[in-house]
Amino acid sequence: MEYEKAWLKYHRLSNYKDCTFFCCIYVRESDLVIETAIKELQLAVKEILGIDCDRIHNPNGREEYNMNSGIYFVADQSIQKEGYHIYAKEQVIVIQAGDSKGFLYGVFELIRYLQRNQSVRNIDYKMEPDIPYRMLNHWDNLDGSIERGYAGNSFFFQDNEIMVNERTRMYARLLASVGINATVINNVNVKDCATDLISDMYFDKLRAMASIFKEYGIQLFLSLNFAAPMELGGLHSADPLNEEVRTWWKEKMVEVYQNIPNLGGFLIKADSEGRPGPFTYGRTHADGANMLAEAVAPFEGLIIWRCFVYNCQQDWRDKVTDRARAGYDNFKPLDGKFLDNVILQIKNGPMDFQVREPITPLFGALHHTNQMLEVQIAQEYTGQQKHICYLIPMFEQILQFHTYLQDQKDTIREIISGQALNQKNCGIAAVANTGNDSNWTGHDLAAANLYGFGRLAYQKDCTAEDIAREWVEVTFGSNKEMITTITDILMRSWPIYEQYTAPLGIGWMVNPNHHYGPNVDGYEYDRWGTYHRADHLGIGVDRSERGTGYAITYQEPLASTYNSVETCPDELLLFFHHVSYTHILKSGKSVIQHIYDTHFDGVENVENMMKALDKIKEYLPLAVYNRMVPRLEEQLRLAKEWRDQINTYFYRKSGIIDTKNRTIY
Amino acid sequence: MEYEKAWLKYHRLSNYKDCTFFCCIYVRESDLVIETAIKELQLAVKEILGIDCDRIHNPNGREEYNMNSGIYFVADQSIQKEGYHIYAKEQVIVIQAGDSKGFLYGVFELIRYLQRNQSVRNIDYKMEPDIPYRMLNHWDNLDGSIERGYAGNSFFFQDNEIMVNERTRMYARLLASVGINATVINNVNVKDCATDLISDMYFDKLRAMASIFKEYGIQLFLSLNFAAPMELGGLHSADPLNEEVRTWWKEKMVEVYQNIPNLGGFLIKADSEGRPGPFTYGRTHADGANMLAEAVAPFEGLIIWRCFVYNCQQDWRDKVTDRARAGYDNFKPLDGKFLDNVILQIKNGPMDFQVREPITPLFGALHHTNQMLEVQIAQEYTGQQKHICYLIPMFEQILQFHTYLQDQKDTIREIISGQALNQKNCGIAAVANTGNDSNWTGHDLAAANLYGFGRLAYQKDCTAEDIAREWVEVTFGSNKEMITTITDILMRSWPIYEQYTAPLGIGWMVNPNHHYGPNVDGYEYDRWGTYHRADHLGIGVDRSERGTGYAITYQEPLASTYNSVETCPDELLLFFHHVSYTHILKSGKSVIQHIYDTHFDGVENVENMMKALDKIKEYLPLAVYNRMVPRLEEQLRLAKEWRDQINTYFYRKSGIIDTKNRTIY
Repeated sequence: MEYEKAWLKYHRLSNYKDCTFFCCIYVRESDLVIETAIKELQLAVKEILGIDCDRIHNPNGREEYNMNSGIYFVADQSIQKEGYHIYAKEQVIVIQAGDSKGFLYGVFELIRYLQRNQSVRNIDYKMEPDIPYRMLNHWDNLDGSIERGYAGNSFFFQDNEIMVNERTRMYARLLASVGINATVINNVNVKDCATDLISDMYFDKLRAMASIFKEYGIQLFLSLNFAAPMELGGLHSADPLNEEVRTWWKEKMVEVYQNIPNLGGFLIKADSEGRPGPFTYGRTHADGANMLAEAVAPFEGLIIWRCFVYNCQQDWRDKVTDRARAGYDNFKPLDGKFLDNVILQIKNGPMDFQVREPITPLFGALHHTNQMLEVQIAQEYTGQQKHICYLIPMFEQILQFHTYLQDQKDTIREIISGQALNQKNCGIAAVANTGNDSNWTGHDLAAANLYGFGRLAYQKDCTAEDIAREWVEVTFGSNKEMITTITDILMRSWPIYEQYTAPLGIGWMVNPNHHYGPNVDGYEYDRWGTYHRADHLGIGVDRSERGTGYAITYQEPLASTYNSVETCPDELLLFFHHVSYTHILKSGKSVIQHIYDTHFDGVENVENMMKALDKIKEYLPLAVYNRMVPRLEEQLRLAKEWRDQINTYFYRKSGIIDTKNRTIY
Repeated sequence: MEYEKAWLKYHRLSNYKDCTFFCCIYVRESDLVIETAIKELQLAVKEILGIDCDRIHNPNGREEYNMNSGIYFVADQSIQKEGYHIYAKEQVIVIQAGDSKGFLYGVFELIRYLQRNQSVRNIDYKMEPDIPYRMLNHWDNLDGSIERGYAGNSFFFQDNEIMVNERTRMYARLLASVGINATVINNVNVKDCATDLISDMYFDKLRAMASIFKEYGIQLFLSLNFAAPMELGGLHSADPLNEEVRTWWKEKMVEVYQNIPNLGGFLIKADSEGRPGPFTYGRTHADGANMLAEAVAPFEGLIIWRCFVYNCQQDWRDKVTDRARAGYDNFKPLDGKFLDNVILQIKNGPMDFQVREPITPLFGALHHTNQMLEVQIAQEYTGQQKHICYLIPMFEQILQFHTYLQDQKDTIREIISGQALNQKNCGIAAVANTGNDSNWTGHDLAAANLYGFGRLAYQKDCTAEDIAREWVEVTFGSNKEMITTITDILMRSWPIYEQYTAPLGIGWMVNPNHHYGPNVDGYEYDRWGTYHRADHLGIGVDRSERGTGYAITYQEPLASTYNSVETCPDELLLFFHHVSYTHILKSGKSVIQHIYDTHFDGVENVENMMKALDKIKEYLPLAVYNRMVPRLEEQLRLAKEWRDQINTYFYRKSGIIDTKNRTIY
């Protein structure tokens, strides 16, 4: 369980111009989190500048411009929760914050200036985060395995024991440095020992972990087993309207919160993919969530209820049922029925983290329900951390997406920040990509997704490209060519991955179960509702009003746009429509030629990416480069496999030749 | 580990006419196996007729027609090994045999007369088996699992321990009753603890097991790990030409045979699917086999060397390499290079136990090599003992197949009986379909394959249909309608299974790994050399001389027959040729219409089979019928799934409609 420090590995700067500011920190009042901020700043200043940054008590709590240089922590209630305002004036830098976490995040922002060798002489930067909960979801099992984990085993669990150690603290530092303020440490599929996390078997360790997290402004959450009253409590039911069950949960929560006072609440996957839930008892998801919400309300706990609920026993012959509709159909009717400490956690797309999906219409459909966006930085369908796939540009598009929920404030970002509907319990969650690999994320470049997720969520004015560049600099240093090259690779990686995998929004075409590598018909005759419906003439799923009707679950004008082949964007065409291989895209190419071209291009682009990386390898630590090489080779190998299988499949099926006459088998 | 007695569960006959013959047994000399014969006869006579059949010493060893009724065991050296002659004369029945096993097999034949309520008054039946080794291959692992096992776990092994108990004896009785005289109890993939079977960890138990088997005329064999000198002996090599290695094996075999004196020898899978072998050292299979053969020769041991050797890392894009050629290409050049106590064990087809394959050309290619046919009664690709698939008609075809190895005596049966090439170490092996399910084979009707394999191998004049009827009668009794119905179902079951699965000899189209259920492209882009090459115009693998050349590895006239689309039999057409969907078969149908018709017919036939069974259910034990019902339902469910997936796949690919306009998705 060795670990590296990722983007918090500080490098000494010998030529920094503004050292004088960093001689000391003036602080009046302090608490656990402010102490962390002070320690983090002292550590960074020592390691980067070689300066012992003294802490000085500042009795009046205000900046003193004319007396002493230094950094002043100044409380300012006009600044919103978790926000800060950093500015330089004369000899001093002031960090204003409305609460302790604001100081912590301000300190990490200041540290980034140092890491990037930027002058702070004229700094004047104010940031107030808009999204209240910025959360990770770990799918870690208590045996130490990680569902969809691609960076080793869990660093939270091993052999059904919880581990609390120095890595726990390093993890918390990494999260806090990018503004993540909540984490769920166990898999949403709660089985076996994980059910016991809310029993005294695990309270001591969880309390210890929650305490460390608290120092870094992070709330611990747990995934819950809806059937716990039966499995743990010995009841004969888990019916949310059964009084005995309700009482059991209330008493259980008293016990839990007595033992883990800092607990943020619970994440629940119910009635999905074999997990128990309220449907068993003919109850609604609102019944289930509200029962738990009542039990945690006295402790200001939250219930985060996942909307990933669909029929996973579909018959492939059935062309009426549409898994894409499931989230909307299941939860739209429940709008307004959930208590205020319930948040619905909604995946970005209607399917499951494909390389390209439309935004789920559910975000545009709920007017009276707290919402949280769920994205996945674990690269389940996007190369499993063997392929480079920087996902922040995708998330940026998602957050900027207009749902047309209402005339103003209708973007996903405005919804999950609470601004759209004037809510406070909202947020964003990412399925985590970490494990006990020394570099945390397997592929070193995959760390950009962890970093980027936090930064994008916290810092509303950042672009995906800004974040990429920032991550490269704080991780690998200041060489311009290296920064440009890696930033460019990151920014191109998602489109490239899309090029060589499933085309035009159709998704899937992967090997079942493990979801790695091409298999065009892998899910075509299976029970998961994930079909491409390709025949010798064409491909795609008709989700227009003539088909499953999914397209018209969107608000207008989205419904009309998606409903028509003419207006549907190319990149989602096969998701919404079944079209002929000879259909001409807006790009001017036929569908089949688009498939051939993108797949040949995709492989070429991977090759170019490898060449570009090779040129700047001297600027990367040897260990990092050596870890990367076999992954790059694997990405190229598999990109070729995707290219050849997809092209061959469609050539054999359509009989239409590639106009450029390249090799298809 | 409860067990039933399968076809050795005797039912009392109240009206048997010829009871007087069964009053006593006259025997002169006896040995272990003759004692078994006596006990078996006494048991059957007691249970079927209610008679205590006394054993009487017969000092001169000859029959005495005029004195006493009874059954006389008479040694007669003119009868070949393991054969017998049973005849009735006046008051007595005489069983003549040339050796002890002949008496045992004669007794079981006589018992079958009783079981079937047949008169023995005019019995005069002589049988001398032609195939020397009639063997089972169990793919049982020491942890108790069975590779490709569909009837529970192993009854030989559990938790890395060997079990020797009453079930071992029952197993031996079942085998002896149908003439099986050898068995390999562990998986050919020898890993982990199985390597230790030739160490003193397991000698005691193996000796005990071998002793029980010996009572029933069965020789114990073991599968061997070619890398044992390294894994067990700590040597740095397993090179068959390395003197240290050779010495290790010689010494090891002295030790093994001192401890298990009855051991028949060893079965080896080398250089196949990841198993170690002589290729690692640049040696030939002959080098490998002969090294072991020398080591076991002093103990009259046999080395049975599997020919299932192929490149399992094929690139699907490669249309030159042909897995079907592998057996021929690997072993034909070694003809004549093997010692006389080596037998090559050759699978019936060139691929791997598909529902339909051509007979491997290797049988027609070896002139100076001992050969053994390997078939599989474990229904890996033929419904996994959930579907009814009586395989004996397939084996019958295989045994009757003319290889054109030479002008006379060129059938597979003549080759593996040793008659064709005047050999003594030859035989037939079946991968076993047993497990610790109480009825031994999961599906009760699958027991017909175990029974039938032994009977077909032993009794050269039996047809598959005779055997089916015989098995039904000895298992389920004498109701005529029941016998006709089940015999008919068994006889139709293999053709029906072929109807609803992969068409016209192309094979595969199953789910990878577990090999159950349809998946047309399941192996199409994989590394196993098992492709159908279907595109929008046609399907099939060109194995003619214009293709991979596999067809012309056969002796003439087979080579010409298979090489030409005009003469190739319909049922193997797609194995040998790539043809258009509109190609007209000898049946008069197009390929595509044949696919549609057979798949619709297959499902209908399963439904008819179920109706027929339902009509005679009263004649089956309730427990048997209750075990069968869910399997029949599963067979119907999956037959429909096969029908719909195959028809849809080819309709979507070809665009050609079913002339009968039935439902295709």
